[in-house]
Amino acid sequence: MSNEQDVAVTIIAMERAALDRWGKGDPSGYLEISAPEVVYFDPLLERRLDGLEALTRYYEALRGQVRIDRDELINPNVQVCGEVAVLTFNYVSYTGETEMRWNCTEVYRRYDGRWRIIQTHWSITQHLK
Amino acid sequence: MSNEQDVAVTIIAMERAALDRWGKGDPSGYLEISAPEVVYFDPLLERRLDGLEALTRYYEALRGQVRIDRDELINPNVQVCGEVAVLTFNYVSYTGETEMRWNCTEVYRRYDGRWRIIQTHWSITQHLK
Repeated sequence: MSNEQDVAVTIIAMERAALDRWGKGDPSGYLEISAPEVVYFDPLLERRLDGLEALTRYYEALRGQVRIDRDELINPNVQVCGEVAVLTFNYVSYTGETEMRWNCTEVYRRYDGRWRIIQTHWSITQHLK
Repeated sequence: MSNEQDVAVTIIAMERAALDRWGKGDPSGYLEISAPEVVYFDPLLERRLDGLEALTRYYEALRGQVRIDRDELINPNVQVCGEVAVLTFNYVSYTGETEMRWNCTEVYRRYDGRWRIIQTHWSITQHLK
């Protein structure tokens, strides 16, 4: 595999592992791979969150409250630019009868050989029609 | 100014200029600064758009249909990592009596000294409460 393919495989596996924990109510998978300077958007927030400390406070309040029965990470794409990798994907999660469809952008940065998230953006797919 | 501050000023000015044209119904400001490999999310779409050709088709269909009377780019932040700059901001636009609040992530990449957008993600702020 080329180096870019290696990076893509690594990044997608990291995201998948963090999502698996998230779907069981455990936000630590994401917190452990987020950088101190992470910035974060999701559709519950009034504004961007800045920094791992703010994200930790927010995610810890959600611990144990998320349950995803099954999900699918759709068409993941990784753009590799030196020490930065931009992962984008669509995502669908199912909890009981409820289906939710998401857009997601994760920007990873490599520090000392380890990839960390510096930007997360979750949103609802086709919210406006 | 440090190099990082220079980059931040440049990137924010590019975004502001493209938004100004967008608000007058002209999508070319964004198309001219988007890279061939751009990926794109917004809340009208069922899935990610891949590539400048797809984005051009989409935006040309909207030409002349957007009118923003006034707006504000709130708390822009630029994370500079070598040849990549990650711009995030909240945004509010007003058209007549309608106010809309947005989250936005733009990933810019520098090619031969010119910054181009390789990832755009627009979403609605606090859509879920």
